[in-house]
Amino acid sequence: MADPSTGAPDFDGWSCPLPLRHTERIVMGHGGGGRMSGELIEHLFRPAFGASGELHDAATVPIPVGSSRLAFSTDSYVVRPLFFPGGCIGDLAVHGTINDVAMSGARPIGLSCGFIIEEGTELSVLGRIAEAMGAAARAAGVPLVTGDTKVVDAGSGDGVYVNTAGIGVIPDGVDIRPTRATPGDAIIVSGPIGEHGVAVMSQRDGLEFGTEIRSDTAALHEMVAAIVAVCPDVHVLRDPTRGGVTATLCEIATAAGVGIEYEEDRVPVPDAVAAACSFLGLDPMHIANEGKLVAIVPEAAADDVLAAMHADPHGAGATVIGRVVADHPGVVTARTRLGARRVVDLPLGEQLPRIC
Amino acid sequence: MADPSTGAPDFDGWSCPLPLRHTERIVMGHGGGGRMSGELIEHLFRPAFGASGELHDAATVPIPVGSSRLAFSTDSYVVRPLFFPGGCIGDLAVHGTINDVAMSGARPIGLSCGFIIEEGTELSVLGRIAEAMGAAARAAGVPLVTGDTKVVDAGSGDGVYVNTAGIGVIPDGVDIRPTRATPGDAIIVSGPIGEHGVAVMSQRDGLEFGTEIRSDTAALHEMVAAIVAVCPDVHVLRDPTRGGVTATLCEIATAAGVGIEYEEDRVPVPDAVAAACSFLGLDPMHIANEGKLVAIVPEAAADDVLAAMHADPHGAGATVIGRVVADHPGVVTARTRLGARRVVDLPLGEQLPRIC
Repeated sequence: MADPSTGAPDFDGWSCPLPLRHTERIVMGHGGGGRMSGELIEHLFRPAFGASGELHDAATVPIPVGSSRLAFSTDSYVVRPLFFPGGCIGDLAVHGTINDVAMSGARPIGLSCGFIIEEGTELSVLGRIAEAMGAAARAAGVPLVTGDTKVVDAGSGDGVYVNTAGIGVIPDGVDIRPTRATPGDAIIVSGPIGEHGVAVMSQRDGLEFGTEIRSDTAALHEMVAAIVAVCPDVHVLRDPTRGGVTATLCEIATAAGVGIEYEEDRVPVPDAVAAACSFLGLDPMHIANEGKLVAIVPEAAADDVLAAMHADPHGAGATVIGRVVADHPGVVTARTRLGARRVVDLPLGEQLPRIC
Repeated sequence: MADPSTGAPDFDGWSCPLPLRHTERIVMGHGGGGRMSGELIEHLFRPAFGASGELHDAATVPIPVGSSRLAFSTDSYVVRPLFFPGGCIGDLAVHGTINDVAMSGARPIGLSCGFIIEEGTELSVLGRIAEAMGAAARAAGVPLVTGDTKVVDAGSGDGVYVNTAGIGVIPDGVDIRPTRATPGDAIIVSGPIGEHGVAVMSQRDGLEFGTEIRSDTAALHEMVAAIVAVCPDVHVLRDPTRGGVTATLCEIATAAGVGIEYEEDRVPVPDAVAAACSFLGLDPMHIANEGKLVAIVPEAAADDVLAAMHADPHGAGATVIGRVVADHPGVVTARTRLGARRVVDLPLGEQLPRIC
């Protein structure tokens, strides 16, 4: 980001200043597929991602011996602002797609990334995002293997959009999907909810407020592997991102044709999230998370799954919040702190857009 | 697209008018992960893509028995205008990623798609794009298996951006990559060049000109399979998109450390492309193609490969344009129509941006 006093770029945290061809900002030529595109790949993306292989239209990924099913997922990220407490669009894009792949029980083996960059974006901003992606991918052990860059003219974008797609291998015998939710199953949330959404909202123009909350953005594939190891018959896994835990539960209830009941006072809501939501008139159950999962498992396996989650750094706060029931199929209900039971409906849209 | 005389949406070519919740345009809620997102998926994307399976964070794709390597690629599409003679951003996004996967010799087995849609975009426009994607995927026999939709506020996008990622399986024994170009190899172009770029340019604001040229957008995986069947030792395949055939040849010469020589008068350039390029001051060799490939094969196999390409509807115009040489490593030269030889350099950027 430019230093406001001097206008000079600040390369703090970016290990690879680009030989800049007399520009410190993205120009249309960076997206043209010619020499400037090549320089951007060679001097910015490849060092950031730690990539050393040959360049080709497609990457080659070895298939682990004995694999019979792939998980394949994609997400685009348009979060605003690009940097927020606890993360940025780059690590979010890596974690989010790793998590989507992992929610089928798969072990992620490779990621792609596609950048759509607005002309005029500072190269140092792009560098920081790419560095965050590379660091997140290395920490997760899931390589970024292929990518693409497009540049759109000023006014046709908003800095940087990132798409990631991911592939993984699903262990034989594992069958995790929303329709497997079965009456009697326990519903587990892996930790405190609402942190990502509140952290991003706290930085929005016109809405800034003080909070110590940081985004929970994290890769959950190791925790999923631990869950599957103790309970290969886990029925459903979902990461409650846009629409929050409420949207996740409503979608599962509808897909499986079952009822879902949870206890409001069992849902872990950090005090600072509760305070921000109270202030903004929002429901923490509707707020996006980026490092949490909802697990629906046979009641008999719930204690083992909880223990496996508690042993993972991202699951220390895991707790049972409710259960799947045969009553009111397709409907989610919550028992309030006063003991009443209310119907919980899918939100129409998102309370605040561009949260991920 | 709205009928300018009445303002009414024209659903021609779109089989699934959305139950519109009193809106004919995309609103932020369509990207929120709630009920409106669900309606968009259920009533627009799934019918257009012909998808009938269960919804989940990730799709499950069976791995064909005996496969040991995956090809994995991604591209974002920001072409403007969205619709152009011969195609639109939707079929382009399907064909382009199928081709990127196929250029490693792989058989594509699945595609993802990610939409970034600007608030206010007409639902009928989105519907036409989705229909084009579904039709292209069905025609190619490569299913769209997973997707994502984000909405950005008006002014932060330009209608619709599409990302596709693709996976394929690489047959054992096939090893196709730029560094395998070897002195003596024949260089084949699969047909007339420059059509996509000229077709898109002809529609640009401020640059409209009459031409009968249509985009060559097409999926080339069947032709690749035919090439590999007659020549499993094919050295290099590339689709000359952004930067045109010139960028492709320069990148291969650099990657492999070989020289490349071609004859200008052997390069198939349609008269209308030549006329448009002359008018615009452009070089057809720099213009993007979306349904052509460059094959670099051992000299001894060139006739068989040519015959296989000629038997494919997208390769009828295939022709040898030059060869790989040991001289001037990293440098591409062209013999001009007057018999002189000139050095051909990688373009700096793209002659006209947002071509794909």
